[in-house]
Amino acid sequence: MSLVVVGSVALDSVETPVGRRDDILGGAASFFSVTASLLTKVSLVGVVGDDFPEAHVTLFREKGVDLTGLMRAPGKTFRWAGRYSADFATRTTLDTQLNVFADWRPTLPPSYRAAEYVFLANIHPTLQGRVLDEIARPKFVAMDTMNYWIEGTPVELRDTLKRVDALIINEEEARMLAGATNLLEAARGIRTLGPRILVVKRGEYGAVLFTEDDTFALPAYPLARVVDPTGAGDSFAGGFMGEIARRGASDADALRSAVAMGTVTGSFSVEDFGLDRVRTLGANELFSRRRALATLVRIPEL
Amino acid sequence: MSLVVVGSVALDSVETPVGRRDDILGGAASFFSVTASLLTKVSLVGVVGDDFPEAHVTLFREKGVDLTGLMRAPGKTFRWAGRYSADFATRTTLDTQLNVFADWRPTLPPSYRAAEYVFLANIHPTLQGRVLDEIARPKFVAMDTMNYWIEGTPVELRDTLKRVDALIINEEEARMLAGATNLLEAARGIRTLGPRILVVKRGEYGAVLFTEDDTFALPAYPLARVVDPTGAGDSFAGGFMGEIARRGASDADALRSAVAMGTVTGSFSVEDFGLDRVRTLGANELFSRRRALATLVRIPEL
Repeated sequence: MSLVVVGSVALDSVETPVGRRDDILGGAASFFSVTASLLTKVSLVGVVGDDFPEAHVTLFREKGVDLTGLMRAPGKTFRWAGRYSADFATRTTLDTQLNVFADWRPTLPPSYRAAEYVFLANIHPTLQGRVLDEIARPKFVAMDTMNYWIEGTPVELRDTLKRVDALIINEEEARMLAGATNLLEAARGIRTLGPRILVVKRGEYGAVLFTEDDTFALPAYPLARVVDPTGAGDSFAGGFMGEIARRGASDADALRSAVAMGTVTGSFSVEDFGLDRVRTLGANELFSRRRALATLVRIPEL
Repeated sequence: MSLVVVGSVALDSVETPVGRRDDILGGAASFFSVTASLLTKVSLVGVVGDDFPEAHVTLFREKGVDLTGLMRAPGKTFRWAGRYSADFATRTTLDTQLNVFADWRPTLPPSYRAAEYVFLANIHPTLQGRVLDEIARPKFVAMDTMNYWIEGTPVELRDTLKRVDALIINEEEARMLAGATNLLEAARGIRTLGPRILVVKRGEYGAVLFTEDDTFALPAYPLARVVDPTGAGDSFAGGFMGEIARRGASDADALRSAVAMGTVTGSFSVEDFGLDRVRTLGANELFSRRRALATLVRIPEL
C-alpha cells in the first residue's frame, strides 16, 4: 500500500479574471490525488453524491487512483462557488453546499489499512483522527487544516496535531495557530504541538520547510499566466506527499525534494481551471520544471 | 573610481513593535553607502543641514565612505518619522520635513566624475538624470524610484529609465509602473522602458531578478527577530551594487551574486534600529550568511 488521502471531493464553480467554469471537479482530495498520482499510487477516501459525473470517476481511474474508499451517498455532491479579484489577491466564497459531505464519517476500506503514507486534507480534526485510528502503522502522516478549525475546534485540532509527522498549512494560518507574527517563532510554536515537520505555504511567494535541524525556503515558480488558483495548496500537498512516497523516505533531502516537487505541482495547478492542467501533465514536464526551479534559485560561487 | 550613490541622508525617528529611536541616521544614501562599503569603495552625494551630528559623519568616514559630495547646507537635515504596525505589515509616516533636501540640486565633485558604478536612490527622476549627465562613462547604473514619481512625474521618470542598466524597485511599484498584475508581464513591460535588468524587492518574501536571458528568485533570509525594517530596500541595493562593483562585472552570475548579496545585507539591516546592525557587520558575517542563504535554497538531486 502506498499513499492514502482523505478529504473533500467537490463540484466547484469558479470565476477568475480569466473566465468562469461551473461544476468542475474540485475538492482537496481531488487536487491532491490527481497530482500525487504522477509520482505514486494513490488511494482516495471521500464521498460524493449520486449526481457526481462519471467523467470525473473516469479521470481518477485513468490516473490509477484507487476509489475503493470513495463512498457514493444518496444526495448531492459537495458544491463550492467562488470568485477571485482582478489581481487574484482575494477570493470571495459565493456559495457552499456541504450536501453529502455534511454528515460523512470517513471509513477506510480494509485494503487501505496497511497504508504507509497518509495525507489528511482539511476536514474536521476529529475525523482526521478517526482515519488515523484505522491505519495500522503509517510511516509518514501529514495534515492540512484551516482557520475554521483553528478557531472553532482548538482542542480537537491539538489532539490530531500530536499524531502527525507534518503539518502543511498556509502562512496566515500558521501565524494564527501559533499566535506569533514572526514565522520562525510560529514554526517553533507549532512544532511543540506535535508535528516534527512544518511546511508553510505562501502562495505566489513560495513555501518554507521547518524541521528540528533544517530550514528550507523556495520562491514560487514564476508563471506568465495564472488562470485559477483554486486547489493550488492541495496540488502542492499532492506533489509533496507523492515525492515522499516515491522516495520512501522523509530524511532532510527527501523533505526538501518534496517541497520542491510541491512547488512544481502547485505551479502547474494554477495554469488552468480546476484540474485541467494537472490532468494532462506528463512526468517529463514535471521533472523538467523541477530542473527549471533548481536553475531559478541557483546562487553562483562568490 | 568605484561606486557613487546619490540620495537622501536623513535623521529618522522610528517606532516599531520592539521600541523607538529618535533622530537616528537614516536616508537611502546612508543605508546604501554603509552597506555597500563592506564590499567596495563608496562615494556619497547628498545634503545635510548644519544640525547633522558629527557622530554620523564619523561613521561614514570609518566605513571609508568618500564624503566630498556630501553638501552641508544652512538649515536642518531632512527628517522623517514613522511607525510600524504590531506585525510590521504596515508603516505609517508620522512626519516628513524635507528641510535642506527640498531645494537641493545634486552636483558631483570632479573627483567623482570618472565613476564606473552608480546608484541613483529614490529622488526626483530629473535630479537622477542630472547626476548621470555629470558622469563621463559609467559601466553600470542602477536606480530606485517610488509610487510618488511613478504617478507624479511619469514623463521625467521614463526619460531617466532609458538611461539606466537596472531598476531596483518594490513589487507593488513594479506592478504600478508597468500597469500589470502578473510579475513576469510587469517585468517585460518595465524592461521595454529602458532598464535591461529589473530587480523586484518583495520584503519578507525575497527578491526576483529579470533580464533578457535569466530569471532568478530568492526567498528572504528567515530571521528570528526583526527590529526595524526601515532602510531594508536601500541596504539591499547597497549589497547588490557593492557586489557588482566588487566583481567589476554585470554578467548573469554577477547579477545573481548581487541579488544574493542584497538579500543578505537587507536581512542584516532589519535586525536592529537604523544602521546599528550594519555598522558593526564584518565581512566574515556577510559571507557566512551568504553561505547560509545558499544552503537555505539548496534543492537536492531527484
